[in-house]
Amino acid sequence: MNINQNYLKLEDSYLFSTIAKKVAEFTAKNPHASLIKLGIGDVTLPLAPVVIEAIKHAADEMGKQETFKGYGPEQGYAFLREAIQKYYMRKNVELMADEIFISDGAKSDLGNILDIFGLDNTVLIPDPVYPVYVDTNVMAGRKIVFIDANRQNEFLPLPDDNIKCDIIYICSPNNPTGAVYSKDGLKKWVDYALKNNSVILFDAAYECFIKSKELPNSIYEIDGAKNCAIEFCSLSKTAGFTGTRCGYTIVPKQLVKQGASLNKFWVRRQTTKFNGVPYIVQKAAEAVFTEKGQEQIKANITYYSENAKIISDTMDRKGIWYTGGKHSPYIWLKCPNNMSSWDFFDYLLNNIAVVGTPGAGFGKNGEGYFRLTSFGNREKTLEAMERFSKLF
Amino acid sequence: MNINQNYLKLEDSYLFSTIAKKVAEFTAKNPHASLIKLGIGDVTLPLAPVVIEAIKHAADEMGKQETFKGYGPEQGYAFLREAIQKYYMRKNVELMADEIFISDGAKSDLGNILDIFGLDNTVLIPDPVYPVYVDTNVMAGRKIVFIDANRQNEFLPLPDDNIKCDIIYICSPNNPTGAVYSKDGLKKWVDYALKNNSVILFDAAYECFIKSKELPNSIYEIDGAKNCAIEFCSLSKTAGFTGTRCGYTIVPKQLVKQGASLNKFWVRRQTTKFNGVPYIVQKAAEAVFTEKGQEQIKANITYYSENAKIISDTMDRKGIWYTGGKHSPYIWLKCPNNMSSWDFFDYLLNNIAVVGTPGAGFGKNGEGYFRLTSFGNREKTLEAMERFSKLF
Repeated sequence: MNINQNYLKLEDSYLFSTIAKKVAEFTAKNPHASLIKLGIGDVTLPLAPVVIEAIKHAADEMGKQETFKGYGPEQGYAFLREAIQKYYMRKNVELMADEIFISDGAKSDLGNILDIFGLDNTVLIPDPVYPVYVDTNVMAGRKIVFIDANRQNEFLPLPDDNIKCDIIYICSPNNPTGAVYSKDGLKKWVDYALKNNSVILFDAAYECFIKSKELPNSIYEIDGAKNCAIEFCSLSKTAGFTGTRCGYTIVPKQLVKQGASLNKFWVRRQTTKFNGVPYIVQKAAEAVFTEKGQEQIKANITYYSENAKIISDTMDRKGIWYTGGKHSPYIWLKCPNNMSSWDFFDYLLNNIAVVGTPGAGFGKNGEGYFRLTSFGNREKTLEAMERFSKLF
Repeated sequence: MNINQNYLKLEDSYLFSTIAKKVAEFTAKNPHASLIKLGIGDVTLPLAPVVIEAIKHAADEMGKQETFKGYGPEQGYAFLREAIQKYYMRKNVELMADEIFISDGAKSDLGNILDIFGLDNTVLIPDPVYPVYVDTNVMAGRKIVFIDANRQNEFLPLPDDNIKCDIIYICSPNNPTGAVYSKDGLKKWVDYALKNNSVILFDAAYECFIKSKELPNSIYEIDGAKNCAIEFCSLSKTAGFTGTRCGYTIVPKQLVKQGASLNKFWVRRQTTKFNGVPYIVQKAAEAVFTEKGQEQIKANITYYSENAKIISDTMDRKGIWYTGGKHSPYIWLKCPNNMSSWDFFDYLLNNIAVVGTPGAGFGKNGEGYFRLTSFGNREKTLEAMERFSKLF
């Protein structure tokens, strides 16, 4: 019996546990301080009314013999795949319903998709990064090459013809930096992938925060992308589904590698190792894509975007460099006075009782940077920025 | 870019598609025949009233700011882990809550668990078998050794000291055969695993159909099992959750291989590639484990068990050999008159319009056998057995 030895190579992340420890120490010393958390990467507004209605209606169906649903299709019910197909149509992206796979969230599929690729592929990952891209590949023993995202390239690295790789991760709008690729930028990646026979894993989990029609919400807005890219998206940030769990993955039929259809491979993976998303959750997700649903979730997205504006306006006024915030719930700022990420963390916590996330926790290029998020409460966000303004 | 070449070695199963095709042809020729399907492996009774109530209550919580739930723990909420802990206590199995992992179903976890094991392990799988055990290992390129389950061993094979293996699949009550291991039988497997440093993957998805206190519901009823076994269970058949998706996996802390805690490895796998089961589904599952919930689901299990008895009584009367049916929703019978599985399928379909599942579809030892299931409607099950009785 051999264990998967690659697991021993995983680095433990102490980012969030260290934050929690420091906050606990601070609170113990300052029991009356009014702490404001702007580090949280989770939504806080409740599910939309149409979604709640849909859940209850689906529950009633499940409670009656005539309308009860047992096993559903592993890839998701047609009603939801078609709703998402129409959602893409509005972005001028034409998909077939069976190119869309319903999942329990982008995180699961971003890990599971690696099943269909060989272990000898080289993976290209930007730094700083969402740690899941790294860990899932370390677990499989793949070679990882990092590409620098930094202030010089506005945290939007472009391909380097001298670096050869097979699997490329792109997250836009980015977590943690909030930076968003232009169509031109993405086109360079698509061209690189087509030329090098690579596959792009495009994480679009934050696409709903994009406000400009000029910026791509989907990689399939770029010519040629269907031949080289898989797209992952989620209702987590779009519709507050972080605790309700529903996402979707697009594997175009044109995506063929070594003569094999990756769409067929993914069908095989999912039918073998997955049994679909709960019927009630799929009905909840369907409601999100109705006209009323889109209106209701837009109100929430606008709320978060306005929080982001409150934060980024403060940075503008103080002359602090940042990316994100405009088309993203994240504001990625350069720590003032050349402070390190953790020094700045301590400084904010101890002086104004505001908690953020040290950029250094997301990779070496995150050192000296700091992430604030807009998922908090309006009054608290305003209050935090008021304290911040007084401090600097 | 290399694809996972192991996928090319997967055999396509034509079992259910061939059944569907034959049934369609029959129905086209006999539009007025009243077809009865006893091949189905899915439940048909609706969710219990307490479950529906719990879903609606959870939906209301998700719709209000104060009670909204975002990301939950990847391993499941404490309330559900503790409910399952108490459920095991009633079988005299003591578990720690953090040995219990909430999943979206046994199928997912039976596949995903393989992540934590090396690719060079040898896997032992009984034949006939639930195809997922085979396919998930073919995908990873592991060596598979089959062990014969047949009439000689009552479809309950015991370990052979001449066969060395690292990972062992046991499903009891079995799918497809309905056979159930005694404590003595399981003890032999546990002893073998301890002696050979193997890990048993114990699929207990059908444990709720066991009616005798003498038969083990959990492998942890056997001494030493916590040092060598992982147990998978599901609410799919227990509480009609096939379309609601909730299961659980037990990884004991005592389970250490090559100095590594498999419990810790599994925590790492799940926190990296999974984001937990929907809050509303976990609340639905919690309701199943309440006193009222247990009463309500017992009514459904009894309904299916009575169907099984109707089928097995018919076989008894006709002197047809079978396993299962007593502590299982499946009846696995020897085709009368030495018919092959598919000949018997055609014979039943064409003469009495009853559909079952040819045993040959589950492996070579299934040839000459046939699976009937008790998940259908009472009247139709009675009618099918009446037709069957007249035919033989």
